[in-house]
Amino acid sequence: MRRLGFAAMEEIAIVVHGGAGALTPDGDGGVSGAEAGAAAALEAGHAVLLAGGSALDAVEAAVVVLEDDPEFNAGRGAALTEYGRVELDASVMDGTERAAGAVAAVRGVRNPVRAARAVLAEGRHVLLVGAPATEFAATAGLGFEAETWFVTDGQRRALNRNGSADAARGTVGAVARDARGHLAAATSTGGVAGQRLGRVGDSPLVGAGTWADDATVAVSCTGHGESIIRAALAHEVDALLRHGGLSLQEACDAAIAGLARYGGDGGLIAVSARGEVAATFSSPAMARGWRVGEAGPIFTAVGPSDGG
Amino acid sequence: MRRLGFAAMEEIAIVVHGGAGALTPDGDGGVSGAEAGAAAALEAGHAVLLAGGSALDAVEAAVVVLEDDPEFNAGRGAALTEYGRVELDASVMDGTERAAGAVAAVRGVRNPVRAARAVLAEGRHVLLVGAPATEFAATAGLGFEAETWFVTDGQRRALNRNGSADAARGTVGAVARDARGHLAAATSTGGVAGQRLGRVGDSPLVGAGTWADDATVAVSCTGHGESIIRAALAHEVDALLRHGGLSLQEACDAAIAGLARYGGDGGLIAVSARGEVAATFSSPAMARGWRVGEAGPIFTAVGPSDGG
Repeated sequence: MRRLGFAAMEEIAIVVHGGAGALTPDGDGGVSGAEAGAAAALEAGHAVLLAGGSALDAVEAAVVVLEDDPEFNAGRGAALTEYGRVELDASVMDGTERAAGAVAAVRGVRNPVRAARAVLAEGRHVLLVGAPATEFAATAGLGFEAETWFVTDGQRRALNRNGSADAARGTVGAVARDARGHLAAATSTGGVAGQRLGRVGDSPLVGAGTWADDATVAVSCTGHGESIIRAALAHEVDALLRHGGLSLQEACDAAIAGLARYGGDGGLIAVSARGEVAATFSSPAMARGWRVGEAGPIFTAVGPSDGG
Repeated sequence: MRRLGFAAMEEIAIVVHGGAGALTPDGDGGVSGAEAGAAAALEAGHAVLLAGGSALDAVEAAVVVLEDDPEFNAGRGAALTEYGRVELDASVMDGTERAAGAVAAVRGVRNPVRAARAVLAEGRHVLLVGAPATEFAATAGLGFEAETWFVTDGQRRALNRNGSADAARGTVGAVARDARGHLAAATSTGGVAGQRLGRVGDSPLVGAGTWADDATVAVSCTGHGESIIRAALAHEVDALLRHGGLSLQEACDAAIAGLARYGGDGGLIAVSARGEVAATFSSPAMARGWRVGEAGPIFTAVGPSDGG
């Protein structure tokens, strides 16, 4: 298992990922495109934190940047389902009271993470799916785009290759700790190339792809969604910290190691209540980046180096 | 918190629930109707186990009985969404390898748990939602009914009362341990009265409403779905056993106690790897029943007595 992580006690912290997958990212921009995208997302989220904004606002801002970036499999650049359709999933979770919002199998919503945030803000439900979820986003006044706007050449090629479940794993996510010590997480994806219409992976599922509790940790996952669901991966990190007494890095390593049982690989990013950050993955690579502290350096990587 | 549970080391065991909720069940048959329904479901599941069948087949058989029974909020008798529509959710999980299948927001599928099982059997995805999930069930050859077949007078009244999130909480579920020591869980629901179209609660979500792992426990939950998702309730029971070292009853009590943090109440049933069973709830009542061993007595109850 390849991993990367370090601990820091700084006040603010943000970590982003652009998906677990092959050493060569699926995006047309390759490694440099993925690293540039991660850096831009970090900058957006860090600016929120630096201005005294909430972790929840920071992860939303970071994920919006990644969704708009066609290099990643979320929002524009999403993987195509069978029949070449675009269906989008996203979730957000606020560690303060574990409030959460999520949407799955929505269409045309430019920034699905904003739709997830609108579900959280309404407070009535946690997860909305399908056409009613799309209508909810429209009623909330969110921006929409034509389906063709989302489709990139890279994702057309990925679908045509074979629609294998290994293709196009550039799910995106962010976790953050704000100056008041609150944690938040957000995850967004287009799923896997060639998936059945209506298939929902881990990304919009609280406890699977996303988790946040101020007392323990905020987590965003990426990789083989069905395996991550069966591992309850994001909540497992919480459980290993809360009940198992492991350190953040130990918990992330153990949770990712457990994925192998289900034949899948993947990765996750995490920030602990104390401001430690981690990025762990069993896939060949994971686009990722972090920035800890008000003036800490921006770190980004795709391969298994520990260049931090 | 009211609870009920006992431990036994018998080989086979099955536990069912017909939903956490008020002391007077929403079904037209009241307490006796709920207890009779639970007993019939136990009989169906126990017969599978007695014949050497799998825990997975047993929980499916039990939940089919509860779905067909209009006393419960699952299949026929499902709670009505806004606009009086019927949308159904279900999941199944096999503890052997944590294989899982689930559907959400399907329409017209007579037995949603069979659709969940078909998703598990295909093995390609874990969760399908909306119209494509309904189409998947049709392609799998499952039985369908007209929407009017599902609608009961009791659920029409519940919707008309106010569509409050407290109405009609008769979600159903089953957990079982078979003679080979395998565990399984299944959960099925119509949701809550007056919910948004496309709203998905905990029932079809692995880790929230349903969980099974042969090494630890099988769990099926019921109650306020949004709170259960935020508690990752079913997986939390696993975590408290696996990492926290608690007994089954302690783990169930602690997990249910945690629900209060999110303003919701609910309940769960569980069977451990050793064949212990538990039924715990913080709601005023929970229709439930169990049978442990090849010739053990059938126990059923709705209120907070410990009549076992």
